[in-house]
Amino acid sequence: MTTAPWRDPALPAAARVDDLLTRMTLEEKAAQLYGVWVGAATDGDGVAPLQREMTADYEWDELITLGLGQLTRSFGTAPVDPALGARALARAQRRITAAGRFGIPAIAHEECLAGFTAWQATAYPVPLAWGAAFDPPLVEELGRHIGHDLRSVGVHQGLAPVLDVVRDPRWGRVEETIGEDPYLVGTIGTAYVRGLEQAGIIATLKHFAGYASSVGARNLAPVRAGVREFADVTLPPFEMALREGGARSVMAAYNETDGVPASADPRLLTGLLRDEWDFEGTVVADYFGIGFLQSLHRVAGTEAEAARLALAAGIDVELPTLKCYGRPLVAAVREGTVPQALVDRAARRVLLQKCELGLLDEDWEPAREGPVDLDSTANRALARRLAEESVVLLDNPDGTLPLAPGTRVAVVGPRAADALAMLGCYSFPSHVLTHHPEVDLGIAIPTVLDSLRAELPDAKVTFAEGCDVSDPDTSGFQEAVARAAEADVCVAVLGDRAGLFGRGTSGEGCDVTDLALPGVQADLLDTLVATGVPVVLVLLTGRPYALGRWHGRLGAVVQAFFPGEEGGPAVAGVLSGRVNPSGRLPVSVPRVPGGQPWTYLQPPLGLAGEVSNLDPTPLYPFGHGHSYTTFAWETVSGKETEIGTDGSYDVTVAVRNTGEQAGAEVVQLYLHDPVASVTRPDVRLIGYQRVELAPGESRRVTFRFHADLSAFTDREGARVVEPGALELRVAASSADVRDTVPLRLTGPVRRLGPDRVLRCETRVE
Amino acid sequence: MTTAPWRDPALPAAARVDDLLTRMTLEEKAAQLYGVWVGAATDGDGVAPLQREMTADYEWDELITLGLGQLTRSFGTAPVDPALGARALARAQRRITAAGRFGIPAIAHEECLAGFTAWQATAYPVPLAWGAAFDPPLVEELGRHIGHDLRSVGVHQGLAPVLDVVRDPRWGRVEETIGEDPYLVGTIGTAYVRGLEQAGIIATLKHFAGYASSVGARNLAPVRAGVREFADVTLPPFEMALREGGARSVMAAYNETDGVPASADPRLLTGLLRDEWDFEGTVVADYFGIGFLQSLHRVAGTEAEAARLALAAGIDVELPTLKCYGRPLVAAVREGTVPQALVDRAARRVLLQKCELGLLDEDWEPAREGPVDLDSTANRALARRLAEESVVLLDNPDGTLPLAPGTRVAVVGPRAADALAMLGCYSFPSHVLTHHPEVDLGIAIPTVLDSLRAELPDAKVTFAEGCDVSDPDTSGFQEAVARAAEADVCVAVLGDRAGLFGRGTSGEGCDVTDLALPGVQADLLDTLVATGVPVVLVLLTGRPYALGRWHGRLGAVVQAFFPGEEGGPAVAGVLSGRVNPSGRLPVSVPRVPGGQPWTYLQPPLGLAGEVSNLDPTPLYPFGHGHSYTTFAWETVSGKETEIGTDGSYDVTVAVRNTGEQAGAEVVQLYLHDPVASVTRPDVRLIGYQRVELAPGESRRVTFRFHADLSAFTDREGARVVEPGALELRVAASSADVRDTVPLRLTGPVRRLGPDRVLRCETRVE
Repeated sequence: MTTAPWRDPALPAAARVDDLLTRMTLEEKAAQLYGVWVGAATDGDGVAPLQREMTADYEWDELITLGLGQLTRSFGTAPVDPALGARALARAQRRITAAGRFGIPAIAHEECLAGFTAWQATAYPVPLAWGAAFDPPLVEELGRHIGHDLRSVGVHQGLAPVLDVVRDPRWGRVEETIGEDPYLVGTIGTAYVRGLEQAGIIATLKHFAGYASSVGARNLAPVRAGVREFADVTLPPFEMALREGGARSVMAAYNETDGVPASADPRLLTGLLRDEWDFEGTVVADYFGIGFLQSLHRVAGTEAEAARLALAAGIDVELPTLKCYGRPLVAAVREGTVPQALVDRAARRVLLQKCELGLLDEDWEPAREGPVDLDSTANRALARRLAEESVVLLDNPDGTLPLAPGTRVAVVGPRAADALAMLGCYSFPSHVLTHHPEVDLGIAIPTVLDSLRAELPDAKVTFAEGCDVSDPDTSGFQEAVARAAEADVCVAVLGDRAGLFGRGTSGEGCDVTDLALPGVQADLLDTLVATGVPVVLVLLTGRPYALGRWHGRLGAVVQAFFPGEEGGPAVAGVLSGRVNPSGRLPVSVPRVPGGQPWTYLQPPLGLAGEVSNLDPTPLYPFGHGHSYTTFAWETVSGKETEIGTDGSYDVTVAVRNTGEQAGAEVVQLYLHDPVASVTRPDVRLIGYQRVELAPGESRRVTFRFHADLSAFTDREGARVVEPGALELRVAASSADVRDTVPLRLTGPVRRLGPDRVLRCETRVE
Repeated sequence: MTTAPWRDPALPAAARVDDLLTRMTLEEKAAQLYGVWVGAATDGDGVAPLQREMTADYEWDELITLGLGQLTRSFGTAPVDPALGARALARAQRRITAAGRFGIPAIAHEECLAGFTAWQATAYPVPLAWGAAFDPPLVEELGRHIGHDLRSVGVHQGLAPVLDVVRDPRWGRVEETIGEDPYLVGTIGTAYVRGLEQAGIIATLKHFAGYASSVGARNLAPVRAGVREFADVTLPPFEMALREGGARSVMAAYNETDGVPASADPRLLTGLLRDEWDFEGTVVADYFGIGFLQSLHRVAGTEAEAARLALAAGIDVELPTLKCYGRPLVAAVREGTVPQALVDRAARRVLLQKCELGLLDEDWEPAREGPVDLDSTANRALARRLAEESVVLLDNPDGTLPLAPGTRVAVVGPRAADALAMLGCYSFPSHVLTHHPEVDLGIAIPTVLDSLRAELPDAKVTFAEGCDVSDPDTSGFQEAVARAAEADVCVAVLGDRAGLFGRGTSGEGCDVTDLALPGVQADLLDTLVATGVPVVLVLLTGRPYALGRWHGRLGAVVQAFFPGEEGGPAVAGVLSGRVNPSGRLPVSVPRVPGGQPWTYLQPPLGLAGEVSNLDPTPLYPFGHGHSYTTFAWETVSGKETEIGTDGSYDVTVAVRNTGEQAGAEVVQLYLHDPVASVTRPDVRLIGYQRVELAPGESRRVTFRFHADLSAFTDREGARVVEPGALELRVAASSADVRDTVPLRLTGPVRRLGPDRVLRCETRVE
């Protein structure tokens, strides 16, 4: 018997897939277009559909006779020992390959927002903390570590990163984002993609697109955005992560923008993504998102209509169900309401990916069995380093920090002694273990209190919780005040509890109506400040909260965004001075709880002005963060230069550590465009470089500014570079400009194509 | 000497203007394209440019030798006796006609948002109260009254109505709008336009377009809106007021939408307004709005560039300055950067309007001198009736209202005894007199306290202010509580102070970060409620405030939106029972202060759902309002009917007053579109009828629903009627559906042109 062409690894993938498609029935092709949510039993004895309704009236054994496109989160639904989980997944794959005519395994995907979302896997800092670190190489390493762990247990695809740009900090999923600037989100997100893909894992860019802009910051609420905002703020991170990161999958977003659901938008998912950006990977649905076209958006009257809309728009794979792409799609093709060619188009993409993964090869084997360690020493070291780089010292006016070794410290607050205070909603403990209170966390997570005691062995450290994160009970205030009154300094550890759908104060479905600290924590802080003892506020949160109420009244303010399992030591290290803080704000910290939405990307009329009584400018601006050392800046490049609208210009900044302690400065480059044909943000980030400096050390950072970086979407919808004056602003934050380089672009208006320069190349000497 | 053709009233206006243009220099044409802000001296002795910078380095006498397009607000800047003001205006016009070669007077314009903004003129309820009355014929009468008064003193143009649709109730100018529904804004606004235009006054539709949607509700902040939201929510009131109201002027808005300032948008001001809608009147700038293209939006580098952008976009007249359309424009034309034809285009429109007004006629005379009464008995009666119809009884669960005649009433609150509590920001006293504290109000404005004492002569009425509107001092709470404790019922009169740019809690430039009652009024209310005495909350506000905190704990809630000089008796009449309340909410009243923006026009995912923990649905929905009588409803039309996509269908509703007291019901018709090609609001208002009914009386209201009313903007930007199922919902509010009429549209998708049906014709029998 000769090998069929599709089985022949010597043939090009396209030829193999073409051959395979000729052999498949409609039902078999459709089966490649959906995934089902499976769960590994905690005894490792099997993987089976998790929720009956997701597979409708199919039986698992019957279902897989047609083959199966994807297996959804076999690790992510119950606390299963990873080695047993890997064995169960391998067994499920063998059942799938045995049941179908072609013996093609499923693509197994998992969540990996801030680490592999599996029991006993490393819980890294959340993406908002990655943003605060301003360190793409470290995030690339993070991606590699996570990717390696996913591969080790037989997973092929990771549903990350989130490339949504924060538009309203009240949204519950802000913790999952990298920040409010598209350049920061793009560069950090791309680094993560590179890492995952280097490890052989398919990165999935999400949520494509617009999801973060929901009105009132309510999860899944409609998005009010024009085409220019969409093109210039929402899309750039995706473009960069595809072009420079090589991501092989994109997830269609739940939301609608201006009436058109992303999941039913062919202009977005095909016109832009495929035709303009040349994307060749797969587009997967967000969970249940295709069905939502019928049930929530009401742009489809039936499941078949939802399937037609999504497939025509360009969604290749329904997840984690076959509600629409199962029988309804097949019936619609048979009835002629959905062209067969659309099924073939999607099936080809899925099978090409399977071919690249080796899943069409005869010698394919599931992951090798054996011991699995998803929380290795190397992982923990990486988690520690990223956590340390991400802690932001917002204020320290009187040098209250670092704490003296023998000081008396009253640690107060509901986040001080809770390990879960370190973790975001998509960490396994927050995401899944809340359903399994009998199971331990699976990983060691030192709290801030534990860590501070370890960090300051000679200090007298007392503790009082004061209050709960969200409960209104204030009966614990008294003890907290008593502890503070006995101390030299009070460290108030406040913040969020991450959870899903209302079980937290931050996380998916945990949106807020304003940016006041949750529960009675603001009152606790008032009470502590009133004692007169210097208060160091430590925030462990998933979003920025309004701090204007305490401005000028706190000893210091430390902001950490869910810093992960090593976040306790990282925060304590900053408090003790072992760690010199180097994080910078990836989101603005507002003065007052109301007045949202606001981010720093504002045209002049989005800033304070005489025309409204309200001043929306933040207390701590985007890019802000202090250090325990001092830095001297000098711009050494030429000034007042002209370049063409296709030219580039080097700006060199010399930075010297003028203090006594090693530290890192984040040199930021912003663009100010004084006059343009449409309104432009007053400033926006176009480059940055984190620089580690020993005391006395000096380094030169050179930014290669290319005129393409000044481009924006004009009135006709084209991305153009306009001639005229510009200012490059060398800055320590979006509001702390150290030097200004005026520049004039000369020549004609240039209309840019998809090969435009996306990134400010940076050199450090 | 023969009369020049342009002077010949026998010739068509176009011919006269063409002739005139051939005779004018560039400078003379340009002079027709601006207005200057003038002030009548309080002794009536002159009109002269008010602010030096507005006329740059021009001298008045030199300026008018070129002629002058417009005179801005000669009455609106100082408390001048109207008869003297009229004389001064006439004198200024004579000077203008004497100084120029052609002797053409200026068009004199004034504000007339809620009455002629002049001293001693009637201060009517604000537009938000017109919305609450749901009574277009009465608003048309209002327009006639205001127009008559404007005409009587020589004014030609009124800068009203505001047709902005509320998109975020935190905006300070919400009081100036008619509400959050485009159909309500369109029908009421059109009625006002008809009235003004019937009186010979040029109505000016503003602000064209998008101004109400500023992000964070900050005045002039950028607008995030897509093309469908813009077409289906923002534009319809303008279309109706032009087509059905015959408005002869449109004011370009300050704001930008998605990066493009309205004042520099040729697609809006020419493509849509002129080419599609066939508008032939003038487009005027909002005050200083052309200069803002340079100074605030930064889409122009110079004044000449701002002039070029605005003129090319389609703004004919700069107000109230010649900063851009004066020398910079003339120089730009001479240099060839602005085509002469653009100046001619605008000058032709201005001169055509002057010709129609008789200002080109040789026998033109300014307004006849003589006594002027801008606050006639008829005006006051109209102000009273509109105020009475606009008071909304939000809640009265236990029949606390009306108050018994002999009851002991403690009137409490900072709005109870202040006449200015009745007035919005654009009333003359709030707008101008705050600069002239020495001058009396000019009109009688009974307070709620005065009026309640008059209304209930046998009641024991006590009073305590309790607190200020915005001052944080709570020292008056104690007396307020004491008064309440001695009474049978406490009437808490709370709300806003209207003012300009930070001098108020509501009004232009007085935006808020959340919808909490201003100052410590919420705390005062808490304190009053805690006494156990039934509290009747009376709100005199310019926007809705969150009332969830007191839900179920108040005796009654009465909402009045700045009800004007006769608002005191109107509110007191509702409290006493003399007036049976019949107002309905033109804006939703939210539960909590945060979570904005929200209005009732929401697709399914804009409503409460499982996907977010937040419930944005209001405490009191759009269209809600109680009566002291009861009504029985019956839908008598057929059901389950099919009509073509170009068809119409009559829905008849019989309403009977089943109570003991005469009253008015507002029958509302909403459309629910279950499935469409883009997401659609769950419900939207498509018809309404106010019906006055004596006890026992019954009337039948027939709505002629035309399929065009189901139209929306599709993905291609076309306005279409789609076939499929619809539901007509006969309702007493947007949330109180009394009957549902299912309907199926059959036939092809219809693409509508500018002749589409805009209105649900309604018949009452």
